[in-house]
Amino acid sequence: MDHNEVAKVLAESLPYIQKYRGKTIVIKYGGSVMKDEKLKGYVINDLVLMKCVGINIVVVHGGGPFISSHLKKLNKKSIFIDGLRYTDNETMDVVQMVLCGKVNKDLVNLIENYGGKSIGLCGIDGNMLEAKKASLKMDLGNVGEIVNVNTEIINNSIENGYIPVISSVARGNNGELYNINADTCTFRIAAALKAQNLIFLTDVPGVMTDVRDPSTLVSELKLQDIAKMYKDNMIKGGMIPKITSCVEAIESGVKSAHIIDGRVPHCLLLELFSKKGIGTMIY
Amino acid sequence: MDHNEVAKVLAESLPYIQKYRGKTIVIKYGGSVMKDEKLKGYVINDLVLMKCVGINIVVVHGGGPFISSHLKKLNKKSIFIDGLRYTDNETMDVVQMVLCGKVNKDLVNLIENYGGKSIGLCGIDGNMLEAKKASLKMDLGNVGEIVNVNTEIINNSIENGYIPVISSVARGNNGELYNINADTCTFRIAAALKAQNLIFLTDVPGVMTDVRDPSTLVSELKLQDIAKMYKDNMIKGGMIPKITSCVEAIESGVKSAHIIDGRVPHCLLLELFSKKGIGTMIY
Amino acid sequence: MDHNEVAKVLAESLPYIQKYRGKTIVIKYGGSVMKDEKLKGYVINDLVLMKCVGINIVVVHGGGPFISSHLKKLNKKSIFIDGLRYTDNETMDVVQMVLCGKVNKDLVNLIENYGGKSIGLCGIDGNMLEAKKASLKMDLGNVGEIVNVNTEIINNSIENGYIPVISSVARGNNGELYNINADTCTFRIAAALKAQNLIFLTDVPGVMTDVRDPSTLVSELKLQDIAKMYKDNMIKGGMIPKITSCVEAIESGVKSAHIIDGRVPHCLLLELFSKKGIGTMIY
Amino acid sequence: MDHNEVAKVLAESLPYIQKYRGKTIVIKYGGSVMKDEKLKGYVINDLVLMKCVGINIVVVHGGGPFISSHLKKLNKKSIFIDGLRYTDNETMDVVQMVLCGKVNKDLVNLIENYGGKSIGLCGIDGNMLEAKKASLKMDLGNVGEIVNVNTEIINNSIENGYIPVISSVARGNNGELYNINADTCTFRIAAALKAQNLIFLTDVPGVMTDVRDPSTLVSELKLQDIAKMYKDNMIKGGMIPKITSCVEAIESGVKSAHIIDGRVPHCLLLELFSKKGIGTMIY
Amino acid sequence: MDHNEVAKVLAESLPYIQKYRGKTIVIKYGGSVMKDEKLKGYVINDLVLMKCVGINIVVVHGGGPFISSHLKKLNKKSIFIDGLRYTDNETMDVVQMVLCGKVNKDLVNLIENYGGKSIGLCGIDGNMLEAKKASLKMDLGNVGEIVNVNTEIINNSIENGYIPVISSVARGNNGELYNINADTCTFRIAAALKAQNLIFLTDVPGVMTDVRDPSTLVSELKLQDIAKMYKDNMIKGGMIPKITSCVEAIESGVKSAHIIDGRVPHCLLLELFSKKGIGTMIY
Amino acid sequence: MDHNEVAKVLAESLPYIQKYRGKTIVIKYGGSVMKDEKLKGYVINDLVLMKCVGINIVVVHGGGPFISSHLKKLNKKSIFIDGLRYTDNETMDVVQMVLCGKVNKDLVNLIENYGGKSIGLCGIDGNMLEAKKASLKMDLGNVGEIVNVNTEIINNSIENGYIPVISSVARGNNGELYNINADTCTFRIAAALKAQNLIFLTDVPGVMTDVRDPSTLVSELKLQDIAKMYKDNMIKGGMIPKITSCVEAIESGVKSAHIIDGRVPHCLLLELFSKKGIGTMIY
Repeated sequence: MDHNEVAKVLAESLPYIQKYRGKTIVIKYGGSVMKDEKLKGYVINDLVLMKCVGINIVVVHGGGPFISSHLKKLNKKSIFIDGLRYTDNETMDVVQMVLCGKVNKDLVNLIENYGGKSIGLCGIDGNMLEAKKASLKMDLGNVGEIVNVNTEIINNSIENGYIPVISSVARGNNGELYNINADTCTFRIAAALKAQNLIFLTDVPGVMTDVRDPSTLVSELKLQDIAKMYKDNMIKGGMIPKITSCVEAIESGVKSAHIIDGRVPHCLLLELFSKKGIGTMIY
Repeated sequence: MDHNEVAKVLAESLPYIQKYRGKTIVIKYGGSVMKDEKLKGYVINDLVLMKCVGINIVVVHGGGPFISSHLKKLNKKSIFIDGLRYTDNETMDVVQMVLCGKVNKDLVNLIENYGGKSIGLCGIDGNMLEAKKASLKMDLGNVGEIVNVNTEIINNSIENGYIPVISSVARGNNGELYNINADTCTFRIAAALKAQNLIFLTDVPGVMTDVRDPSTLVSELKLQDIAKMYKDNMIKGGMIPKITSCVEAIESGVKSAHIIDGRVPHCLLLELFSKKGIGTMIY
Repeated sequence: MDHNEVAKVLAESLPYIQKYRGKTIVIKYGGSVMKDEKLKGYVINDLVLMKCVGINIVVVHGGGPFISSHLKKLNKKSIFIDGLRYTDNETMDVVQMVLCGKVNKDLVNLIENYGGKSIGLCGIDGNMLEAKKASLKMDLGNVGEIVNVNTEIINNSIENGYIPVISSVARGNNGELYNINADTCTFRIAAALKAQNLIFLTDVPGVMTDVRDPSTLVSELKLQDIAKMYKDNMIKGGMIPKITSCVEAIESGVKSAHIIDGRVPHCLLLELFSKKGIGTMIY
Repeated sequence: MDHNEVAKVLAESLPYIQKYRGKTIVIKYGGSVMKDEKLKGYVINDLVLMKCVGINIVVVHGGGPFISSHLKKLNKKSIFIDGLRYTDNETMDVVQMVLCGKVNKDLVNLIENYGGKSIGLCGIDGNMLEAKKASLKMDLGNVGEIVNVNTEIINNSIENGYIPVISSVARGNNGELYNINADTCTFRIAAALKAQNLIFLTDVPGVMTDVRDPSTLVSELKLQDIAKMYKDNMIKGGMIPKITSCVEAIESGVKSAHIIDGRVPHCLLLELFSKKGIGTMIY
Repeated sequence: MDHNEVAKVLAESLPYIQKYRGKTIVIKYGGSVMKDEKLKGYVINDLVLMKCVGINIVVVHGGGPFISSHLKKLNKKSIFIDGLRYTDNETMDVVQMVLCGKVNKDLVNLIENYGGKSIGLCGIDGNMLEAKKASLKMDLGNVGEIVNVNTEIINNSIENGYIPVISSVARGNNGELYNINADTCTFRIAAALKAQNLIFLTDVPGVMTDVRDPSTLVSELKLQDIAKMYKDNMIKGGMIPKITSCVEAIESGVKSAHIIDGRVPHCLLLELFSKKGIGTMIY
Repeated sequence: MDHNEVAKVLAESLPYIQKYRGKTIVIKYGGSVMKDEKLKGYVINDLVLMKCVGINIVVVHGGGPFISSHLKKLNKKSIFIDGLRYTDNETMDVVQMVLCGKVNKDLVNLIENYGGKSIGLCGIDGNMLEAKKASLKMDLGNVGEIVNVNTEIINNSIENGYIPVISSVARGNNGELYNINADTCTFRIAAALKAQNLIFLTDVPGVMTDVRDPSTLVSELKLQDIAKMYKDNMIKGGMIPKITSCVEAIESGVKSAHIIDGRVPHCLLLELFSKKGIGTMIY
C-alpha cells in the first residue's frame, strides 16, 4: 500500500476515534481465541492502540482450555455440567493459579511488550467481585455468582493510565473463593462501570441464524428481536450465556454489546473503526 | 481498499502514536497553502486527529496573501523589502484585522467543524508575545521582533483540551502593536514551550539542493551540515528564514524541525506517522 | 483632595467591594461610547480595578460605527432594517474582521496597558455561541440568533485570572458565521453564566420617561413596572432591545440589570460603588 | 465630597492594589494604639479592605496596657526592666489570659464585625512559636526568645481566606510558656513567612531625628544609614527594638519595613495606597 | 505484663480502630475533671492516640471552677441560677479570658506535649458559634443560646491534621459576646459536624437509677426509655442538660452519645476500645 | 487481663505509632513461615493494624515450599544450586502460577478477611520489576536479577489505601519472565521506595553468633560490625542473602532493617511497638 493511502486511512479514522474517546469499553477475551500467538498479538496491539487514543479499555479474560490442560497434567479430569466446570477445592486452586497467575499476568506482559501500561487483577483484589455459591440444580462446588462489584480498584487503574486485566475469580463473605463464568463476569463489570460498550471476542463470526452457515450472520440485533429468536430456537449452546449477558448489559445501561470473531486479525479495529463492523451488534 | 487493509494500517500506526503522544508539536501553517479549501480540510482533519490521539498541537499561522488582497480592496499597495512587508499604521490595522479577525477565527471554525476544540489567540492575548520595533537597515514601520514569550495562556489552552491557533501580531511595552514574521514567531513559541517538534507547512517539497528539481530533496539534514549548504549557496530566498528558524529552534532544545509540502494531502500524517516522511527533517 | 480624604474614600468602599467580590458581572460595552480615548481609559481602568478586587468581569462589546466606517472605505453602504444591519457575505467578513480582529483585540490590549490580564474571544472560540439564522420578516443575510451558549471557555478564562472580552459573532451547526445583536448576546451570556449583574454602557443617561429630558431619568425600575411603561409608550427605539434584554436576563436569574451612561467618567464605579448609582437599575 | 471625586479616588487606587495584591504583609498592632475605639475601627476597616483586595494580611498584636491593668485589679504591680516585663508564673498566667483570651479574640471579633473572616492564634497553636528562656543579664522569669517559627497554621489560615491574629505567647520544648516581645515576634513571623512588608502601628509619627519635633520625621531610611543614626544617638528608647526588628526583617528578605502612627485615621491606607506615605519606610 | 500479652492487646484493638477510623467524635471535657494533672495526662494521651489512628477528634471544654476561682481573686462572687452562671459584662470578660485564654490554650499545649497537633478556637473564630441572648425566666446577662454553627473552621482544622479545642464563647449578630452552656455547645457542634459519636467526660460513673449507688449504673439506654426515666424522676440535677443534649444530638443524627467517668484512667479508650464500655451509652 | 491494663497497654503504644506513622515499611513474608494458619492470621492482623494506624505497609512474599510441592504433584523435582532454584521454562510457569496466582492472591484475600484493602501484584504489573538473566557461575535458566524498580504502581496503591502484596516475578526487556530471589527483591523495592524500615519474617530468632543457641541472639547490629562477623564466620547459609540485603538496603538509605522470628505470635508488633524488640535490628 502506498503512503498516501496509509495517510488517507488514518485520516478517516478520526470520526471513530472521536466517537469512542473518553468512553469505557469492556472486552471479554475468551480462552478459545488465545491459542494462536500471532492473533493474540493483533488483539493486544489493538487494545493498546485503543487505550492510546483515549478509550478506557477493561479486559476480562477466560482461560478454560488452559485450566483443563493443567488439570490433565495433574491427572485430574475436567467435568462440565450444563457448560459449567465442576469445581471442587483442588480444582478451584488450579483455576486460581492458572487464571490469576498465568493467563492474567501473561496478558499484562504482552500489553507491556506493545508499550502499554497494564495491571493484572482478579475479584479478590480490592474485594472487587463479591460472590456467593451459585444456586444451581446440582452442587458444582465452588461455582459462584456475583453479588456485588466494587469498581474502585478498576477506576483507579483507568485513571492512572493502566489497562486493567481481570480474572473471573471472586470472593465470598468469609473469604471463600468462587469460579465465576467469565461472560457473566464481563457484563456485571460493564454494568457496574456504566461502560458504553461490551465486546465478546469469540471463536464464531457472531450470531448466525444457522450456526453452520456464516452467511446467515446477523449484523445488528435489536433487544426486542431476541425474544423471537429464542422462541424460533435460533440461539443455542455457548451462545446462550453470551446473548443473555449482552441483553442484561444493555438493560443495565450499556449502549451496545458486540459478539465478534476473535480469529479475524484486528477484529476489534474492524468492529469499532469501520462503518459496518464484522460481527453482531446488539443494542 | 478492503477492511482488513484498513485495520492493518490503523494497527501499524501504534508506534508512531506512542512516539508523539503527550509531546508538544508547533505547526506553522503558511498563508500560501491555505488557498485550496480541500487541502485545508486535509490539514485540519490531521490536526484534529493528532490532538485526539494525545499530541499537544499548537498552530501558528501566516496569511500574507489575504492581507495583500484586502489592502488591494482598500486601494493600498503591498510593499515588500527583503521579504518583509512595509507596515505603516493603516497597514498594521489591516494586518491585525485580517490575521486576528479573519484567518485566525476561520481556522478555529474549521477545527470545530471537524469536531475539535479550538481557541483563536494572538500575541496581544495574555500579553503572549512581547515585542519591540525590529532593528533593520530600513524603517519598515510596525515590523517588530519578539522580546519575550509568555506561555501561560497557551499552556492553559492545551491543558483544557483546546488547539490554540495563534496570529503573529505582538504588543510592545506601551501597547503599540507589531507585525511579526510568522516563521520566527513559530520558532520562538516552540522554544518557549519546549516543544518536541516544529513543522513548517510550505509550498515547496522541502529543502532541495536544486530548487528547480524536486528530485534533489534532502530528507534529513543535520545541524552541522547546514553551514556548508549556506556556503555552497544552496539555501536561498524564502527558505532562509525557515531554515534559520529551524536551526535556532533546535539550538533552543526542540528535538527536530520539519519543512514539508503543505500541498500534499495529509502531509502531516505522512511526515509523522510513516517511516520515511515526505519533506526535510532537520535535527 | 488631601490624603486623609482619599483614605476615607477608599475605606468607605469596603461594603461595596464585599457586596460584589466573587460575583460575576457581565458588561456590554457599546461601540457608541468607545470613540473618546480618554473615556475609554476610564472604563478600562475601572474594569481592571473591579477584577482586581475579586469581581469576575466579562466584557461583551459592540462596534457598529467601526464596521460602518470600514465598509465605507470599501465603498460599501451600511443598510439597517429595524435597527439590524443587513449582512451579506462580504459584510459578514468585515463584521468578523472589525469586531474579532480590531475592536476586540484593541480592548484586550488596553486592559493589559492597565496591568490586567485579558483574552479576546468570539462565539467561534470553543464553539461558545451556537446560532442559527434569525427568523425575521425580511431576509437580512447572516443575521443570527443564539441557540446555545457554551460557557466552558469563559469560565476557564475567569478562573485563570483573565478578563474575557467577547465579540458577538456566532457559528452555526455547519460552521456558517452569524452577526448577532450585541445586546442580546450580552444577556444570553449573563444568563448562561448565572451572572449576578448585567450592565449596559450606553450613550444615554439611562431610562427616561421623556428621552429629551435627562431630569426624567428613572433610577430604579421593578420588572412589574415595565409593562406599564411600554403601554404608556415610554420605551422607544434603541432602548427597546436593551430593556428587553434586561427583562429576559432577570427572568433567567440575573439579580439586577443596569443601563448607565458610558460617557460619564468612571461610570462603572459610580454605579456599583456608591449608594445611589447614576443610571437605571432594573430588578 | 461629590461622587465624581469619590470615583476618581477609587480609580486611582488601582496601581497600589496591583502592587500589593497576592503579597504578604505582617502588621504589628501595638497595645498603645488600641485604646481609642474609633481609631481601632479605622484600623480594622483597613485590614479587612486590604484582605478583600487580595493582600495576605497577618496581624501580630501587643497588649501591655491591658496586662498591667488586669494585674492591678489582682493587686499585682507591673515591673519593667530594660523595657521587658518581669514575668513570674502568676504574671505569665495573666499575660496568657489577657493576650490570648481577651485582646486577641476581641480583635478577631472586630474583624468579623467588619465582614472579614478571622482566626485568633498564639504561639501555642500548632506549635507555631518555639521558644526558650531569654538569655538576659537578669532573670526575668518567663521572658522568652523565639527559636523557631512553624508557619503551617498561618499559611493554612491565609489560604482559607482568614486574617490570622497572633498573640506573642510561645511554648518551650517541654510545654513551658514564654512571654515574647511582640516587636521581635512580628519580625520573626514576617521573616518566616517571607513577607513582602512589615508594618509597625505605633504611637509616634515614625523615626524622628529629634523625638520632640514631628517635623524631623524621616520618610525613608536605607539600611546603610541606620548604623550612622545609632552612632549619632538619634535612635532611643522604645524605638530601638522596633528599628532592630525592621533591620533584621529586611536582612531576612522582607522588602520594606514601615513604622507609622497608629493614631492617624486610616494610617494603613495612607501608608500603602498613596505616593508619599505617612511614617518611616526602611528598606 | 509480658511482651506477648502487650502484643495481644494491641492486636485485638484492630476491630475497634476499624470501627471509628475516619469517623468524627466530639468530646466534652468538663472543667470538673480537669483538676488532677495525672488524669488530665491520661485523657490527653488518649485523645492524641485516637487522632493518630485516624479518628477525627473535636474537643469542647468547660472550665467553671477556673472561672469561679479567678473571679474570687478579683473579689467577685460567682452566682448561679438554675445551674447557669449570672454573667454581667465584667464576668463575661473573665469567662472569655479564662476559657479562651487559659483553659483552652493549656489543653492545646498539653496535646502538643503528647506529640499531637492542635489549635485552640472559640465561637468567635471564623464566626463559628452564632448566638443570641438566651430566653430565660430571669435576665442572666450575657448568657446566650446558639443560633447557628459554622463548621468551616473546624473542618479545615480536622483536614489539616489538627485536634480543634473549642471554648463555649459565642458571638451575636452585632459582635456582642455570650457565655454558652458547654454541654449544649457540644451537642450543637456534634450535630452540625454530623459526628458519629458524642462523649461527655463527667465526674460521675454515668447514668445511675440511684445516684448514690454506682452499682445502679445503666450501661445502655435507648432513646425511647428516657422519657420513662424522666417520669420516674430518675434523672436529676446536672445530669439533665447532659441527657437532654444526648437526646437532641441523637435526634440530629449522631449515632450514639456516651456519658462516662472522666476520673477513671484512660476512660476514653475503655469506653470505645472495649466490648462493654464503662459508662452509659445512649442510642 | 482486666480492662484497665488493656487501656494502659493501648495508651502506651502512642509513641510507637507516632514513630512509624506516615513512614513506609517493607516486609518480606517468607514461605517458610506461612504454613501455620494461626500464625498467618497473627501476621495478617498485625499488617492490617499497622496500615490502619497510618503506616504504609508493603508486603513482598516468597513461597518456595508451595512451588516445590506443586512441582512434585507434576512429578518434577526441585533442584537447588547455591540456594537458588534451577528454573527451566516449565518450572518458571509453575513459579509464576503458584506465586502470582495462589500465594499472592491468598494473602490479599486474608488481608481483606481482616478488614484491610489489598491488591496483589507482581513485577510484571506496571512493568514494576525490570530484570535480566542473572550472571551466575552456572546457567540456572530463568533466574534473574533486578535491573530497575518502577514504583508508580506501588505508590498508587499506597495512596489509595491498599496494602500492595508483591510476588518476586520480574520481566525482561523482551517480556521474558524471571524468577527473582525474594530477599533481594524486598531490599530493591525498599530502596526504590525510600522506605524507612525493612523487616524479614523468617523461621529463626534473628542473627545468632551460634545458630544452634538462641541465647546468642544479637539484638542490635551496626553496619560496621557485620564485616567482622563475616570474617569470624558467624554468618552462614540462608542468613547470608538476608544480611547482604539488609546491608545494601541501609546503604541505599533505609534507616533500619530487622530480621525477626515469624513463628512468634504478633512478632511484628513485638518488634516495632515495644522497646526492646524480639529479633536483630541492623542499622
